[in-house]
Amino acid sequence: MKAKVFIRLKSGVLDPQGKAVEEALKTLGYDEVKGVRVGKFIELEVDGDSKEAVEIRVNEMSEKLLANTVVEDFKVEVE
Amino acid sequence: MKAKVFIRLKSGVLDPQGKAVEEALKTLGYDEVKGVRVGKFIELEVDGDSKEAVEIRVNEMSEKLLANTVVEDFKVEVE
Repeated sequence: MKAKVFIRLKSGVLDPQGKAVEEALKTLGYDEVKGVRVGKFIELEVDGDSKEAVEIRVNEMSEKLLANTVVEDFKVEVE
Repeated sequence: MKAKVFIRLKSGVLDPQGKAVEEALKTLGYDEVKGVRVGKFIELEVDGDSKEAVEIRVNEMSEKLLANTVVEDFKVEVE
């Protein structure tokens, strides 16, 4: 099964990379942009019996390895 | 309006970061995982008259700055 994990910084956590992207966009003339946040997404192929089982495993992986839950939130989607 | 840009390496382009994540997952006992690919997603607040107009501008931004279209594909979603 295909799984996707979306990882973003928690709101309130400073995002210097997002800030840099925002400044760069403004320099290019895109003044209508604000609140830029940069996150990650991870695609995985996971063997499993059911969508639910895969979802549980991928949530576990995210907590243990993929996301830093101190400063990041994550969301798992299984197709 | 809220826009999201999903950026992933084109298929065929080596993804060492994905490979590293895959190995780390296997070390942790998640043997059911393969084909890990790591991408980025960027969230932006964009002022604009219509969803279509914002979509066009964000596509432009992605081509010019956010994605490296030589090795990356991107997808824009406007809410």
